[in-house]
Amino acid sequence: MITCNLNVNSKNPLYIQLYSFIKQEIESENIGCGEKLPSKRALAAHLKISVITVENAYAQLLAEGYITSKPGSGFYVENFAETDKVSFASEISESIPETMPIHYDFRTNRIDTSDFPFSTWAKLSREVLSEQSVDLLNACHHQGILVLRNEIASYLKEFRGMTVDSEQIVIGAGSEYLTGLIIQLLGRDNAYGVENPGYSKIYKIFSANTSRVFPIPMDEKGASTEAISGFGVNVLHVTPSHHFPLGIVMPVSRRQELLRWANSRADRYIIEDDYDSEFRYAGRPIPTLQSMDKNGSVIYMGTFTKSLAPSMRISYMVLPKQLCGRFTTRLGFYSCTVPVFEQLTLAKFMENGHFERHISRMKKIYRQRRDILCIKISESKLENFVKISGCDAGMHLLLTVENGMKQNELLASAAREGVKVYGLSEYYSFPVTNMPENIIVAGFSGLNTDQLVKGAEALERAWCLK
Amino acid sequence: MITCNLNVNSKNPLYIQLYSFIKQEIESENIGCGEKLPSKRALAAHLKISVITVENAYAQLLAEGYITSKPGSGFYVENFAETDKVSFASEISESIPETMPIHYDFRTNRIDTSDFPFSTWAKLSREVLSEQSVDLLNACHHQGILVLRNEIASYLKEFRGMTVDSEQIVIGAGSEYLTGLIIQLLGRDNAYGVENPGYSKIYKIFSANTSRVFPIPMDEKGASTEAISGFGVNVLHVTPSHHFPLGIVMPVSRRQELLRWANSRADRYIIEDDYDSEFRYAGRPIPTLQSMDKNGSVIYMGTFTKSLAPSMRISYMVLPKQLCGRFTTRLGFYSCTVPVFEQLTLAKFMENGHFERHISRMKKIYRQRRDILCIKISESKLENFVKISGCDAGMHLLLTVENGMKQNELLASAAREGVKVYGLSEYYSFPVTNMPENIIVAGFSGLNTDQLVKGAEALERAWCLK
Repeated sequence: MITCNLNVNSKNPLYIQLYSFIKQEIESENIGCGEKLPSKRALAAHLKISVITVENAYAQLLAEGYITSKPGSGFYVENFAETDKVSFASEISESIPETMPIHYDFRTNRIDTSDFPFSTWAKLSREVLSEQSVDLLNACHHQGILVLRNEIASYLKEFRGMTVDSEQIVIGAGSEYLTGLIIQLLGRDNAYGVENPGYSKIYKIFSANTSRVFPIPMDEKGASTEAISGFGVNVLHVTPSHHFPLGIVMPVSRRQELLRWANSRADRYIIEDDYDSEFRYAGRPIPTLQSMDKNGSVIYMGTFTKSLAPSMRISYMVLPKQLCGRFTTRLGFYSCTVPVFEQLTLAKFMENGHFERHISRMKKIYRQRRDILCIKISESKLENFVKISGCDAGMHLLLTVENGMKQNELLASAAREGVKVYGLSEYYSFPVTNMPENIIVAGFSGLNTDQLVKGAEALERAWCLK
Repeated sequence: MITCNLNVNSKNPLYIQLYSFIKQEIESENIGCGEKLPSKRALAAHLKISVITVENAYAQLLAEGYITSKPGSGFYVENFAETDKVSFASEISESIPETMPIHYDFRTNRIDTSDFPFSTWAKLSREVLSEQSVDLLNACHHQGILVLRNEIASYLKEFRGMTVDSEQIVIGAGSEYLTGLIIQLLGRDNAYGVENPGYSKIYKIFSANTSRVFPIPMDEKGASTEAISGFGVNVLHVTPSHHFPLGIVMPVSRRQELLRWANSRADRYIIEDDYDSEFRYAGRPIPTLQSMDKNGSVIYMGTFTKSLAPSMRISYMVLPKQLCGRFTTRLGFYSCTVPVFEQLTLAKFMENGHFERHISRMKKIYRQRRDILCIKISESKLENFVKISGCDAGMHLLLTVENGMKQNELLASAAREGVKVYGLSEYYSFPVTNMPENIIVAGFSGLNTDQLVKGAEALERAWCLK
């Protein structure tokens, strides 16, 4: 039985202490690969803590891929080397007519700006305008103003466990722009790998700027390491915290594999796109590849576009220390693309705790929206043939629909009920032989409670065969 | 004798009417190449107008390269085919120690932000914040908000004589960013030509994004067409209104030559960088290549970085109509990089006439600064051996120093007097055999009257040999 000292007076909650202990035991192989963990109830009794505490600790280990759950049997320590490919069946044919009026659009890239603390932002903007007129007009450091880079470093420390110097941070007008800078920094002749399916803009950016972009197929743990080697890729773009659009949280085994891959050659890099890690609903945030990496092989990217508003083009990247010099030499001539005014306002917004409060508020709102959508589906007839997945984080989830309809029929019948949903196949930048034919991507962040309820009802009408 | 009907009731000043008439006569070859124009006095008497009016008309024709002036002889119609190379003597050796305290820095890229109408800008910002909260948060059109593109189109119509649809305008976070977009639009495999000497960032941007960048040597009319053909260049970046840093205003003959070159093949384009055309001190603004072009071979670029403030990263480009579709298809996925807030504020600033007033005010201020520097030089002992050129426009001028000192001695002796000036050789991205050795680039826009006077006095002390 697992025995550890839990400290009720610690700042860390009990479940985190338990999770950390078990994680350490697994990493040091004191608990062996394939070994069964004690049942939640048994461990709770043994440690004299509540079952909920054990449940939360196990959930976090599960989410991070240290353990797996076998239904009806229990929890087992994961085999870190295992890689099974997800296989999809069948293929997609023609496109959907777009003439129907759409009342409920389950787009993935919408955020709800009605909950943005606009009056606070406007107040801080006014303060910046009245206090800092000189700073507002002169060009700033090419990586962005120091006070904002310091705020971002503190945020990453506190919420992502990352120890980062502000010298490593580069602020830019959106992740798209920064991705372009990374390509210029590392060189256009590298072989770049992008997740397939994945964020279609990422593929387009690499295609517009380089000639060697390779589709990396996904298995159940994320980007397939076998494929990476097969294509001779040396720079890999991934979304490990919450894969877009599959929703996969990359387990620790795959993270370690990727880091080993990257660390084994000097010209290998991983671009870790942490685009929506603020919105994680189950357990603690997943540690970033950047924080696990000891060799400076990871370029980390974060954005305020999703956490604040799409109209504010502010993103940042964290360079490994050994790339900072090269960045300044090769690309230091580029002016920072974010206006000083926005940078100063955001720095104030973070400094005064508004950002943290806003994130925590939006997380509650988005979690509620996710819950409503899931509950509506599970309480309706959809429950019989719709499987929900990828919903532990972010702003979208996947619906696998087993009613015999193919993707086009699913989209068309939804459209007839005034609902726009998206087929997973649309997120493939490169065609694959076994294209998924019955998986729907549904963004829930841009719809309010009422719209979600009505949207789910409309989907029930659309997909329930008479 | 030239005879034309001048209309005193016209909105156009008399000198502009006269200039337009003579220009037309030259273009239609009614006044032949090499022909001598009547003397100013004679033409004034003949047309019953003042000598000043003729003088202004001739000055504009001269600036645009339709005529040349032969001292002591008169004005002659230019031979449009002529291309004489400027030849510089000797070469440069080691660099300058940078340990001296610098009191007067004649940098070229400084603008005076102390004259920025900050309270007006802040007032408009507050209005935008209070009126447009929803628009401020949602993503805008990928080419920028329509109201700002409309304002830019009106501005270009009124001040640059350009007829442009807002659909052709793309707003972006600085000309550097937009240049990167152009490369992605036209393709990395083109052979790009950049002016040498030129704006060093432009060379760096092309180098960071393409593998084929060629230095185009300058002759007295601007980029040498012979060299363009020699290198097999098919996309050419030029600064025709006011060459950076030589100050050359590209004469109409060269403009036409370049347009003929570009129009003769479908894959040839000219990128016209009109970076400081707002600040032209002699005669009317020079027509843009874009407005002379009938075949859609010119991509025009303008910026607010120099006219407003460097901290506001707002530039724009005007695409030829036939490239608009390609832009949307290939690059329409990129979000606009300028925050909606800045775009709305700038649109208001332009709409209410503030921009026009600001430009006109800054033009007066910069002209005054140029005059003070020129006068101080011509009233001092420098007059005997310093030739001023390239000062009809922009924010810098050239000083050719004939006191026997080479560039490094000129910079070092100036530094000992607390003055930082810049050698022309620094603006060569590619070394040339006959590097200029005694030409100094002096920016005057960032120094106030007092600093310019003291700076010029310090240069006198530095460069006057005992």
